[in-house]
Amino acid sequence: MNKVKIVEVGPRDGLQNEKTILPLETKFEFIKKLSETGLQTIEITSFVKASAIPQMSDASELFTKVKSELLNTISYPCLVPNLKGYEAALALGVKEIALFSATSDAFTAKNINSTVDESFVKMKEVADLAKKDGIKVRGYISTAFGCPYEGDEPVEKLVSVTKRFFDLGVYEVSVGDTIGVATPKQVRNFLKVLSSEFDMSKIAMHFHDTRGMAMSNTLVSLENGIRTFDSSAGGLGGCPYAKGATGNVATEDVWYLCHSMGMETGINLDKLIEAGQYILEKLGKNPGSKFHKAYINTGRI
Amino acid sequence: MNKVKIVEVGPRDGLQNEKTILPLETKFEFIKKLSETGLQTIEITSFVKASAIPQMSDASELFTKVKSELLNTISYPCLVPNLKGYEAALALGVKEIALFSATSDAFTAKNINSTVDESFVKMKEVADLAKKDGIKVRGYISTAFGCPYEGDEPVEKLVSVTKRFFDLGVYEVSVGDTIGVATPKQVRNFLKVLSSEFDMSKIAMHFHDTRGMAMSNTLVSLENGIRTFDSSAGGLGGCPYAKGATGNVATEDVWYLCHSMGMETGINLDKLIEAGQYILEKLGKNPGSKFHKAYINTGRI
Repeated sequence: MNKVKIVEVGPRDGLQNEKTILPLETKFEFIKKLSETGLQTIEITSFVKASAIPQMSDASELFTKVKSELLNTISYPCLVPNLKGYEAALALGVKEIALFSATSDAFTAKNINSTVDESFVKMKEVADLAKKDGIKVRGYISTAFGCPYEGDEPVEKLVSVTKRFFDLGVYEVSVGDTIGVATPKQVRNFLKVLSSEFDMSKIAMHFHDTRGMAMSNTLVSLENGIRTFDSSAGGLGGCPYAKGATGNVATEDVWYLCHSMGMETGINLDKLIEAGQYILEKLGKNPGSKFHKAYINTGRI
Repeated sequence: MNKVKIVEVGPRDGLQNEKTILPLETKFEFIKKLSETGLQTIEITSFVKASAIPQMSDASELFTKVKSELLNTISYPCLVPNLKGYEAALALGVKEIALFSATSDAFTAKNINSTVDESFVKMKEVADLAKKDGIKVRGYISTAFGCPYEGDEPVEKLVSVTKRFFDLGVYEVSVGDTIGVATPKQVRNFLKVLSSEFDMSKIAMHFHDTRGMAMSNTLVSLENGIRTFDSSAGGLGGCPYAKGATGNVATEDVWYLCHSMGMETGINLDKLIEAGQYILEKLGKNPGSKFHKAYINTGRI
């Protein structure tokens, strides 16, 4: 299978850890540019408390503007941390949500003041309503390969949390290397275990390039049957609860690797670079992606 | 085979493209720090015309100081572009030299004003003398995966130039991705061809991380029998004749990947980071290696 699906998470996971609070118009323009690249799924915001993540405080206005002005053939999922967030999203016409937990109790304690078990109790309420309401649900697992507080995370915890997400009825589970500690050998070992338990077409990988291993980990994932990857245009991102967790892997890096392997993402590179460049300039940041820099400097792949 | 040999090329390939001309004392200190890491081979300079590469104009003084003050159990090869450079190196007591050519005539024309054929005529003179003089010779092949002037380079040219180097009597051929255009699929395909023709224990890979693919290419190389890699501490480097060719892959990146795979390099990471940090500070540069940054920021692998 030569098609790769990229789930763009720049407007949400990418921006939520940027200190510069951007105006709604800039976020909308970023999403609009992303929508013109060929991307079919763009996670655009999170219905969290403004005090928790100020960058996401305009979630309602942003979603409403996207819904009314951009193509409705593209999926614009939103992160939802709890029932209140779900109700707000539903009322605005959100059609796909993402729920999240982690393999690590220490991490969920810092992130959402819950144990992993408690997070599933809360998510079940939301997932049950979503099923009734006809809303698609995706599940995120943080710290799958390692936790800033607990250290190594055994694959058994990942298998267990993945199962619990599928039991909630999610259509896809995104396996997150939140702090960018995964290495190719570990990814290969973990994916071998996952593939014996789950349908790999329902598993996505979500790498951070903190230690420069995201491309190698993506390569190994492609070789082990993964065809869905989360990434951020320009390599934005990080995690407010994980020190040193620099950006999501850049969408252009994933594009480059996939296309170099003869795989198709359906994404126009020039438009993708333009979207990344746009948001990087607004943030006053250099691209985290060497490919992005080289493409701009040399004009060639 | 779980041992990986790293050939440190920072003082030569790394520094030669840095605009800041460093004093001899700084270069020596860098080499001294590298010599304390466990590295067994450190290419320290190039006997070229000072007008061609000003950074290397102190080759004689630098080699002499290294020879008299540092451990003689470490190999300190020097690049030699021609007979005159060879004679200068020999007179100083250099025990190992590196010769270089490329797969691309257009590149050798810009680099050494020769065709590839002509370069081998000149190198044969030097290699024959070196044999007689008991000097070890290593061969570098530039533009193996692509040329800034010719574009794609077919594997047949790499095979042909590799053969010619072994015919000269070199003990090892270093296959260079001078402009950082190699991708994992290409590297795998090229290495499959090379392995059917050559003893892979005599082939080294020399990646530049221009497009962020150096780690993935190193991974594929490890999986295809390569156990020797050239790299620069701190990710210094580039090529004065190849626009956009940013740094060599960082030695600490190669270290991290190899050790994450359960392989041994014999190098002390903290001392390696210290050497890289030292030279980056002298150059006023940020590390090209995300692993380097993360290690310094988080204090963990």
